[in-house]
Amino acid sequence: MTSSQLYPAATLLISCPDQQGLVAKIANFIYANGGNIIHADQHRDEASALFLSRIEWSLDGFNLPRDLIGPAFSAIAQPLQANWQLRFSDAVPRIAIWVSRQDHCLLDLLWRHQAREFAAEIPLIISNHDSLQPLAEQFNIDFHHLPISRETKAKQENQQLALLEKYQIDLVVLAKYMQVLSGSFLAQFPQVINIHHSFLPAFMGAQPYHRAHERGVKIIGATAHYVTEDLDAGPIIEQDVVRITHRDDVKDLIRKGKDLERIVLARGVRLHLQNRVLVYGNRTVVFA
Amino acid sequence: MTSSQLYPAATLLISCPDQQGLVAKIANFIYANGGNIIHADQHRDEASALFLSRIEWSLDGFNLPRDLIGPAFSAIAQPLQANWQLRFSDAVPRIAIWVSRQDHCLLDLLWRHQAREFAAEIPLIISNHDSLQPLAEQFNIDFHHLPISRETKAKQENQQLALLEKYQIDLVVLAKYMQVLSGSFLAQFPQVINIHHSFLPAFMGAQPYHRAHERGVKIIGATAHYVTEDLDAGPIIEQDVVRITHRDDVKDLIRKGKDLERIVLARGVRLHLQNRVLVYGNRTVVFA
Amino acid sequence: MTSSQLYPAATLLISCPDQQGLVAKIANFIYANGGNIIHADQHRDEASALFLSRIEWSLDGFNLPRDLIGPAFSAIAQPLQANWQLRFSDAVPRIAIWVSRQDHCLLDLLWRHQAREFAAEIPLIISNHDSLQPLAEQFNIDFHHLPISRETKAKQENQQLALLEKYQIDLVVLAKYMQVLSGSFLAQFPQVINIHHSFLPAFMGAQPYHRAHERGVKIIGATAHYVTEDLDAGPIIEQDVVRITHRDDVKDLIRKGKDLERIVLARGVRLHLQNRVLVYGNRTVVFA
Amino acid sequence: MTSSQLYPAATLLISCPDQQGLVAKIANFIYANGGNIIHADQHRDEASALFLSRIEWSLDGFNLPRDLIGPAFSAIAQPLQANWQLRFSDAVPRIAIWVSRQDHCLLDLLWRHQAREFAAEIPLIISNHDSLQPLAEQFNIDFHHLPISRETKAKQENQQLALLEKYQIDLVVLAKYMQVLSGSFLAQFPQVINIHHSFLPAFMGAQPYHRAHERGVKIIGATAHYVTEDLDAGPIIEQDVVRITHRDDVKDLIRKGKDLERIVLARGVRLHLQNRVLVYGNRTVVFA
Repeated sequence: MTSSQLYPAATLLISCPDQQGLVAKIANFIYANGGNIIHADQHRDEASALFLSRIEWSLDGFNLPRDLIGPAFSAIAQPLQANWQLRFSDAVPRIAIWVSRQDHCLLDLLWRHQAREFAAEIPLIISNHDSLQPLAEQFNIDFHHLPISRETKAKQENQQLALLEKYQIDLVVLAKYMQVLSGSFLAQFPQVINIHHSFLPAFMGAQPYHRAHERGVKIIGATAHYVTEDLDAGPIIEQDVVRITHRDDVKDLIRKGKDLERIVLARGVRLHLQNRVLVYGNRTVVFA
Repeated sequence: MTSSQLYPAATLLISCPDQQGLVAKIANFIYANGGNIIHADQHRDEASALFLSRIEWSLDGFNLPRDLIGPAFSAIAQPLQANWQLRFSDAVPRIAIWVSRQDHCLLDLLWRHQAREFAAEIPLIISNHDSLQPLAEQFNIDFHHLPISRETKAKQENQQLALLEKYQIDLVVLAKYMQVLSGSFLAQFPQVINIHHSFLPAFMGAQPYHRAHERGVKIIGATAHYVTEDLDAGPIIEQDVVRITHRDDVKDLIRKGKDLERIVLARGVRLHLQNRVLVYGNRTVVFA
Repeated sequence: MTSSQLYPAATLLISCPDQQGLVAKIANFIYANGGNIIHADQHRDEASALFLSRIEWSLDGFNLPRDLIGPAFSAIAQPLQANWQLRFSDAVPRIAIWVSRQDHCLLDLLWRHQAREFAAEIPLIISNHDSLQPLAEQFNIDFHHLPISRETKAKQENQQLALLEKYQIDLVVLAKYMQVLSGSFLAQFPQVINIHHSFLPAFMGAQPYHRAHERGVKIIGATAHYVTEDLDAGPIIEQDVVRITHRDDVKDLIRKGKDLERIVLARGVRLHLQNRVLVYGNRTVVFA
Repeated sequence: MTSSQLYPAATLLISCPDQQGLVAKIANFIYANGGNIIHADQHRDEASALFLSRIEWSLDGFNLPRDLIGPAFSAIAQPLQANWQLRFSDAVPRIAIWVSRQDHCLLDLLWRHQAREFAAEIPLIISNHDSLQPLAEQFNIDFHHLPISRETKAKQENQQLALLEKYQIDLVVLAKYMQVLSGSFLAQFPQVINIHHSFLPAFMGAQPYHRAHERGVKIIGATAHYVTEDLDAGPIIEQDVVRITHRDDVKDLIRKGKDLERIVLARGVRLHLQNRVLVYGNRTVVFA
């Protein structure tokens, strides 16, 4: 829907212990300040008695100056013990794409960016190989080659963090980046989306297609998830699958999987950029 | 979610011209009367500038007596030129299932009812054939055999309407009922869900599987929709598809299609019973 | 295609080390004896250089008496070191369905049998509970209640084997039978198909839906597989999946999963009954 | 499987009235000349009593010189009244891609070609607009801009035919080429694959996404088909679908549809290039 907006909008993602009047409180805050709600969705997690919601309203005619919206809302949020994020649709996030040798996810993301599927900027590509530098140049994006070995990993991660800082990156997208990020890196930069080439939790770790072929599954999948210290175990944003047969050898699985990886990663990134993903515990609510 | 509720809930389906403060108005009405919103979802149709919403709240501790909730809300709704329906989760709707000769959808609905997938009662089965009477008896449901010919159709429709009245039926489900309902019938009883054995609008009308096979499609579908005077052209509630190959002859399409029909019809009926379907124009918003 | 046959057909499933002329050898054997091939499919497994094939031919005008077809073909198969099975479409296999408390897979299989989707007889139902006895009686099928405890398991398995013998059972279908079969049982009766309520190898073992919900997956699945001593690790025949959202609690997963289980198990059983499944190693070729 | 071949292979696509011994005849022809069958699949169309088959064999050790294989086989085929095509895996087909303004299908095909998903050459791109010329240059492919108006159409089609001749094109792929080809063009160059952005036969013709949105369908699709004189009515090679909701406006349908179009067109082209598609009447057998 954002696509069809003439005016910037504000999006609020909020989670807190459920209690009466939450929707009213939030809706009143927006209404009282002259905002019009474009989209509101709300979920109650029974197990944790948690209230989770996404509200998007037009800033056209909204009386509160932007820099006061946050402080004003925190006065409401604090007594609710709420976790919340406020984002503005015209504040364009900056993405760094990390790759290794495979180009399909990178090219796909760059094409979608060009086609305006992502409301974001992509100023930086980082790779542990130099093979995709020409593609980066084709799209006029800075490319940094940071090879990783056990010895150099810590040093290179500092280098990576420095680049994220320098380019003011909001989100790192691992587009088939075949290195594990350390806990200390994630502690300093937690906003990382990865595409794993299996239907998690099946085939976590290395060579999922080889293992899928060996197991003789009839369907393969791909999973877009936030990265945590536990490999391939972070909160899942999106998954999809495709049917295979005995005629498909590992090469065919890899080929068919590429199409899944491209689409699932793109969906995950887009949902994140539209502030539709709310993480709680190790799970996500996707307000799609 | 209703499944996990201890207390009855009220559900409000509402559509009206969009304007500021609608969510706040409705949420306040509920909050002011001591209700807790369990589920709220809202959509804005850009083309028609229409506000469409579904709100569900617990009646536990709600101060307004039930018979006053409607009148009280209409005071809010009238100035908004709103269409709205109010339903209570413990007011169990009564379904009549209409069939011809095929048993798969009927048996499936009856099994799901037994398995408590539907919060409804099924006191009546009507058929233009008598072949499924034994199945009705097995489940202890009244079965009425009303054969239809061009000559008797009008007379039989009056008979059908009388039965719907007598059994206080809220919803008619056409579970492979191979007769067209007249406009005058629908004018008197509009709440009718049909399962069509094609991916509408492809293959409207008779023998969709034969025509799908002839056309050489690689995928077949089924569609659950509300019935209108225009054959197979009513608002679509749910659709699904299954892949076929050149090895599937018409018999195979019919067999594979039966599984689709069972599942798509059941989903459509369940969504309707949970008041998740809001019709506007010839389209639906499904708050799933 | 079998559905449309007027005359009985023979089906040959064969696997052997690949070499020149295999198709010719087999086709000539059939042609020389006056048979007409209705369906022939062949696969070469690159990794193992294995030739795998399914050939179905009409017995109309086939000159070899049935009891000589096997011996005659073994003369061809022996030098090829081939594993092969020969089956006749009018030799109706006998199925025993094993269940615990859940009725959805059992009812579905019985309905499909009634609808002639399975060319088989179902003379026997075995359960470790007595709750589904009425359903068995409704369909006039012998029901044997054999409760299982750690102490009685060995004794009861002997009882089960005796029943399979007595009823001349060719295939056991575990339709949500919540007990593990021992290695000694499987050594004596290896033809067992199970439905597991997850997308294997994800969530092997107990409570897959609970674990799927906990993990926050966006898609759930079901798997029909042959049973081996290793729990949920046998050759996979068929899998399918369905999308879920954060709104689906465990109850919803179980409900949605039931539809998957019914369809995936039915497909697996049907493929087996049509001799379309060739097991090699721990994998299957499905000549669909 | 072709991907894993060390030696060139021959593929035979054949259809003829069914009769005894067809498989034997063909298999013997290959065996007698020292060929080893890599893949054989066969189908019998009951309605037309037609035998349809695809056979692929390795030319490693095949005794017949290539230029004699065709003549030698025609001696077998003639008495069978067979239609057949013989192709060699190392005879690389030449593709011309035709586009209008949209780049997604073109870029996708070019990327797949680069990734070696297609055993083909792409020496020519034709467009009725010049907007995609830079993309063609990026991949070093000749680009010809041939604008079409009612007046110039006939003249330009002659120009197009001349280019297909000059570049020795075997297959034209319409990758969102928004012009209709005339019957006279197709009579002179019949090998044309098109991607239509709907689930045919639903929404044939113009603006399928707008009409899908208007109709309120819950699933949209795309169809790859051979082009015939009847618009969007040619033999279907491949179709796929994606789920949509009321939240998706026409812009969203177009965006989601692009992913379908890319994948369905690529699958259709790949199946054609591997000689897996056999057209009979207005239908296809896809030996996948």
